[in-house]
Amino acid sequence: MGQAGWKGFFQSAFDYKTEKYVIAKNKKVGLLYRLLQLIILLYLVVWVFVIKKGYQDTDTSLQSAVVTKVKGVAYTNTSELGERLWDVADYVIPPQGDNVFFVITNLIVTTNQRQSTCAEREGIPDGMCSQDQDCQAGAPVIAGNGVKTGRCLQAGNSTRGTCEIFAWCPVETQSKPKKPLLRDAEDFTIFIKNYIRFPKFNFSKANVLETKNKGFLKSCRFGPNNHYCPIFRLGSVVQWAGSTFEDIALEGGVIGIHIEWNCDLDKAASECHPSYNFNRLDNKHAKSVSSGYNFRFARYYRDPAGVELRNLMKAYGIRIDVIVNGKAGKFSIIPTIINIGSGVALMGAVSTPPPTHCLSRVEKITGHILPCMVALPHAFIK
Amino acid sequence: MGQAGWKGFFQSAFDYKTEKYVIAKNKKVGLLYRLLQLIILLYLVVWVFVIKKGYQDTDTSLQSAVVTKVKGVAYTNTSELGERLWDVADYVIPPQGDNVFFVITNLIVTTNQRQSTCAEREGIPDGMCSQDQDCQAGAPVIAGNGVKTGRCLQAGNSTRGTCEIFAWCPVETQSKPKKPLLRDAEDFTIFIKNYIRFPKFNFSKANVLETKNKGFLKSCRFGPNNHYCPIFRLGSVVQWAGSTFEDIALEGGVIGIHIEWNCDLDKAASECHPSYNFNRLDNKHAKSVSSGYNFRFARYYRDPAGVELRNLMKAYGIRIDVIVNGKAGKFSIIPTIINIGSGVALMGAVSTPPPTHCLSRVEKITGHILPCMVALPHAFIK
Amino acid sequence: MGQAGWKGFFQSAFDYKTEKYVIAKNKKVGLLYRLLQLIILLYLVVWVFVIKKGYQDTDTSLQSAVVTKVKGVAYTNTSELGERLWDVADYVIPPQGDNVFFVITNLIVTTNQRQSTCAEREGIPDGMCSQDQDCQAGAPVIAGNGVKTGRCLQAGNSTRGTCEIFAWCPVETQSKPKKPLLRDAEDFTIFIKNYIRFPKFNFSKANVLETKNKGFLKSCRFGPNNHYCPIFRLGSVVQWAGSTFEDIALEGGVIGIHIEWNCDLDKAASECHPSYNFNRLDNKHAKSVSSGYNFRFARYYRDPAGVELRNLMKAYGIRIDVIVNGKAGKFSIIPTIINIGSGVALMGAVSTPPPTHCLSRVEKITGHILPCMVALPHAFIK
Repeated sequence: MGQAGWKGFFQSAFDYKTEKYVIAKNKKVGLLYRLLQLIILLYLVVWVFVIKKGYQDTDTSLQSAVVTKVKGVAYTNTSELGERLWDVADYVIPPQGDNVFFVITNLIVTTNQRQSTCAEREGIPDGMCSQDQDCQAGAPVIAGNGVKTGRCLQAGNSTRGTCEIFAWCPVETQSKPKKPLLRDAEDFTIFIKNYIRFPKFNFSKANVLETKNKGFLKSCRFGPNNHYCPIFRLGSVVQWAGSTFEDIALEGGVIGIHIEWNCDLDKAASECHPSYNFNRLDNKHAKSVSSGYNFRFARYYRDPAGVELRNLMKAYGIRIDVIVNGKAGKFSIIPTIINIGSGVALMGAVSTPPPTHCLSRVEKITGHILPCMVALPHAFIK
Repeated sequence: MGQAGWKGFFQSAFDYKTEKYVIAKNKKVGLLYRLLQLIILLYLVVWVFVIKKGYQDTDTSLQSAVVTKVKGVAYTNTSELGERLWDVADYVIPPQGDNVFFVITNLIVTTNQRQSTCAEREGIPDGMCSQDQDCQAGAPVIAGNGVKTGRCLQAGNSTRGTCEIFAWCPVETQSKPKKPLLRDAEDFTIFIKNYIRFPKFNFSKANVLETKNKGFLKSCRFGPNNHYCPIFRLGSVVQWAGSTFEDIALEGGVIGIHIEWNCDLDKAASECHPSYNFNRLDNKHAKSVSSGYNFRFARYYRDPAGVELRNLMKAYGIRIDVIVNGKAGKFSIIPTIINIGSGVALMGAVSTPPPTHCLSRVEKITGHILPCMVALPHAFIK
Repeated sequence: MGQAGWKGFFQSAFDYKTEKYVIAKNKKVGLLYRLLQLIILLYLVVWVFVIKKGYQDTDTSLQSAVVTKVKGVAYTNTSELGERLWDVADYVIPPQGDNVFFVITNLIVTTNQRQSTCAEREGIPDGMCSQDQDCQAGAPVIAGNGVKTGRCLQAGNSTRGTCEIFAWCPVETQSKPKKPLLRDAEDFTIFIKNYIRFPKFNFSKANVLETKNKGFLKSCRFGPNNHYCPIFRLGSVVQWAGSTFEDIALEGGVIGIHIEWNCDLDKAASECHPSYNFNRLDNKHAKSVSSGYNFRFARYYRDPAGVELRNLMKAYGIRIDVIVNGKAGKFSIIPTIINIGSGVALMGAVSTPPPTHCLSRVEKITGHILPCMVALPHAFIK
């Protein structure tokens, strides 16, 4: 188009248009109308900015490293094992101080198992027999300990017996102790080192008070008024998790130690604290077959003749899962603008008054909703 | 300002303003206009509320504990090991029932290794030699098993040989069996206990049917019509993951068992079910050097003289990673308000009709977009 | 209502309403007004679409499997152990190639410990005594190695001594070597296989160049110009993480290897690369008591008489945590529509001009903000 056209265009481009209004002196509508605007402003200020911290850029990709160390010794004196002292290398599995580790509190030991033949345990349906034909040679005993040799072993002159099996013999005896073997585990201490880093803000911190004072970490215990001493008494952890040590030590269980880092980096770094939270992860109420926590492991030896033998251990105990979460927030201009912008837009949207013809309709509640959709926001608040 | 001013202000504050309108009887524009509004309403209702459940507060910070237990025995009879029975303590690594564990299905055993000198394995470039000068004393064999002693060992009167090394001797022989040693592993069963908790709603559940009936969990197997029996046959898991047991047992591999908890807590707690999903995590198609899964570990013994010796095992097998995800939703007033609010705002925004002068321009498509930006929403739908 | 009513309704339903305008030739306001619209358009185009890729559907639930393998041998010659060669089975804990593993670089070995009585170590406050009464029989030594027998052992004719304890004797000697035992660990190599899958897009990839060429993976090393050879020299990893090998090998530490998959699946699959990032996870600066990384483990033997004995090892070393993150994006129509829609709404919202009476007020800055809230968006930009 011609020069004139452009001229006109640019002039009009910066004109400012505004409508003519009819003032409808309708207090009821007006009041509701203002109310809606107030609500939006409150939402914007209180919810978006104060509660949700809409002016901050957040980093949720926490980099965390957990190093754990258990300390303590326990003395036991049983018929199978005799006098025995248990230290960390004996009762912590795995030993390498990961964020998930297991402390043995109860134990069934079956000593000197060898690869040979013996009678299957009582009480396994597939292992019971009354004659050799019941024990098909070479077939494994379902839910049992070995493969059948084909012979049925009757104790004395009883008609029922169990199949002979080729297995690690003797097979495990199922007599679970009535009370935990390592009752003293209650006094073991767990030292949890947790190093975190928020890469976006390049902010690092540890849950350990960085001090040269060796004494502090040697003597202190974690407690409500001592949050920078991450040394936990096992008994206390169990208690805080809402369980009784006697039970969990006997049956076994899983306890979660949650470390939460919720940092507002607009404040000083020293304001960014870890918060601890303990709870029982497995179902402590379940008295069902699936309750408790135990597993089997073995230690392998050789007798002087060089024949391999092993001690099988069925360990009951407490598994500790250290779980670290966190997020950090820091002022950033972009989210601030975006949030204000969208809030403003919300304002603007509501500020459209409804056309009279529609408003009247709505007031009459004629139910012609479609033609009034234009005015939904307003129809809505009525 | 004066009292009168305030009076006027408050009066005006609750006035209700609305524009004068010209009704443009333009069916085409009108139709599109209504269409746009319909779309928004549909988006709001269908997408935001029905599909995205915009009325719910969600908790994605799932607390999960996984406890696994493998059962089953396998019988083997090989030249190195003789008759042997394998039970859980033998073939599960690590033993403590974590959410990641490994089941040995194939094995290369090198028995009675001692710290001494022997010939390096054939086929390691850095270990080949034709004279002593080729074996620099004290230098480790790159990608080999030990440090060179400085001697070159020629077999018989051949000119080529391998360096003598100080190592755990004899070194491992590389003859991988053609078929998996623990073929019977296919019938092993994996019992996966998974306890979850949604802290925000304090909702806990387990994937195990809490029953006193011991029989149920002893006999049942997981299947399409049996989702509350989390006992999996290893062979079936491999099959569901889309692999053949024979292959994975020979070369090794990693299988993921994904447990998904997707709970709508507005419904009954019994409606919150875990859903299982199996897939092969490593690249099963890759026939490259990097395919399969194996690792070496050793068992240490002492001979009667007190000299340490070990059995080195190169284990091939199946690693199972149990991965738990989940989120829960529950009605909450705040997200509901916010979603309705923004939806309403969207409505309101579109309900602004474009100024005539602009609309006409748009209809003429004169391409002066800038001055019409006011009317973008409307220009847009044309 | 009657047929006529319906007729009228449908006619009106597709009418198109638009306001009358007064053109206020106010360049200042107009300019600001246009500016605001430009900003929104820029935000919509640049931020939402170009930077945030608002047109893409994203999958952040990455399925990842990590398999690691360490290679290398180290030769040591110490008084306790004599000549010894260390291979993978000796120095990697745990052996099964998980994403978290530990490489021993320094070691304190206490050989041939037996369950018996001996003197507690010097320097443990609770273990010191000057007479038998100081050693209460049966009480464990706090932070010590065993339970007291009740006797106080004075060396020679000194008045101070340590309690006799029942423990694994002899107790560990605390002489930490001045230089790392396995200094050669610097040349160990770590092979990290990482398989990923984005379930939503069913896209799989590995960080290993799938090649039949065995030579490549045998010889190559990871480097800036060699990103598809995930074989890392341990020394280089430590260096990239900003530590010196000598220090970390002596005291121990934790190093994170972060693998980031950030894939735009609108591009070719070959454009989806892993990016590696190394950093020290524990606090390397901390010279406090809590610095470093070590743990104790034991190997159990039997002497010819069948009595159990063990070698206790306090291992210092490097823990490697392989951490995989990633997300993938792919064009999808729904997010595109939603983003454009909301952007348009934002436009529409701002396009509402303020009523004159209000605008004038704002210009006068009379501070009656409430009645002008209608016009906040506009008041805002002034």
